[in-house]
Amino acid sequence: MTIDARPHKFTLDTSTTALLVIDLQNDFLHPEGFCCAMHGVETSTVERVRSIIPRIVGVIDWARRSGVKVVYTRESHAPDFSDVTPSKKVRYENAGYPIGAPGKFGGFLIRGDSSSALIDELAPIDGEWQYDKPGQGAFYATTLEADLRAAGIDTLLFTGVTTECCVLATFRQAADLGFFTLLLEDCCAAFEPREHEAALDVLLGENGAIGWVATSDALVRSAMPRALDGHDVPVP
Amino acid sequence: MTIDARPHKFTLDTSTTALLVIDLQNDFLHPEGFCCAMHGVETSTVERVRSIIPRIVGVIDWARRSGVKVVYTRESHAPDFSDVTPSKKVRYENAGYPIGAPGKFGGFLIRGDSSSALIDELAPIDGEWQYDKPGQGAFYATTLEADLRAAGIDTLLFTGVTTECCVLATFRQAADLGFFTLLLEDCCAAFEPREHEAALDVLLGENGAIGWVATSDALVRSAMPRALDGHDVPVP
Repeated sequence: MTIDARPHKFTLDTSTTALLVIDLQNDFLHPEGFCCAMHGVETSTVERVRSIIPRIVGVIDWARRSGVKVVYTRESHAPDFSDVTPSKKVRYENAGYPIGAPGKFGGFLIRGDSSSALIDELAPIDGEWQYDKPGQGAFYATTLEADLRAAGIDTLLFTGVTTECCVLATFRQAADLGFFTLLLEDCCAAFEPREHEAALDVLLGENGAIGWVATSDALVRSAMPRALDGHDVPVP
Repeated sequence: MTIDARPHKFTLDTSTTALLVIDLQNDFLHPEGFCCAMHGVETSTVERVRSIIPRIVGVIDWARRSGVKVVYTRESHAPDFSDVTPSKKVRYENAGYPIGAPGKFGGFLIRGDSSSALIDELAPIDGEWQYDKPGQGAFYATTLEADLRAAGIDTLLFTGVTTECCVLATFRQAADLGFFTLLLEDCCAAFEPREHEAALDVLLGENGAIGWVATSDALVRSAMPRALDGHDVPVP
């Protein structure tokens, strides 16, 4: 099937496609989680960032009905910090959110605390994959690439937070690794709108040499005829 | 030594630092090379993009005098296209510059043709490293990471083209791999200024959690006292 994407049309086969749901964790998206509750973050910002959640839930529903593998990631670290590189330690301290900093749900990005858990709006089902990842890019120090190859997946759809940080890092890794990569722009967000837009400008750079961008609506509309065998069911 | 960088100061030890010179190739930067000679590219654009060359040559000179390892990369592919992924083949065709497309100096990005060779303004010396890379990120399908680790290098300075494409991809990989990463903004360029700016916005995103940005002037000024043992010599 072919999707009306930017800067060029995007073709995919649902049987060799996976949907990546990147870092929809309490630390980033719960209203009382570390990032949303940080000093100075406006309620309107929290609402804007969280507005991607129902859209992503809709795309997950579409994926399940279409035979598209759903894959969830969590940025997280061992409680003893053994998988935090010196560079990442300094960067996250500089940014004002040291790894392990105390929050309502536990240490920031600490594996095993509910702080780093998936948000309640997600409910992975059997056969869907979940990865804890210590990098921003989900291919760093995980078995994601090997698992996707073993499953014969060559195409990846990107959703999650934040657009310019973990989503873009994962996208660029995937493109180099040879996957066909489509970012669903209305299913990604950043706390600073300018940073979200910058990531899109990067992805749309070089007239398509970097990757593809589309809306979730364009994806689901394009997919309906094939995914649903012509039956008329509500669009998620 | 400490450099006046954005969004936070950057500290480095020249003995464990490498300078990456990314993709300064005829295909991208020679006035008659593939990209500069493409239909519609203005002379002023070519001049703007090429204006980074003397600045990079200056930083290379500083690096050599400071004990900083200089590393050059070339985006390139085997003449039989065996290292072109299906995704990259489609992306570069979409973009209007298929890999292998004929140009004045040979096939676009073809290894062994002078099209993909380093520009004449660079003259690597013994002990400097050169990599042919089939990805946008220089860590994909190369021995760069292993070589840097073996040499005890933990800090990387980024220069080259284009900012949002191969420079950013390499930077993000390096950050995840645990390197301390500083982009020299006046030593990077893109054919579209907006794409260069977008890459900087990404790197400056999340208040420093992604990486650091500085000018080459800030680097060299900070480095002088240590690198040159207090002797007063011309700044490159």
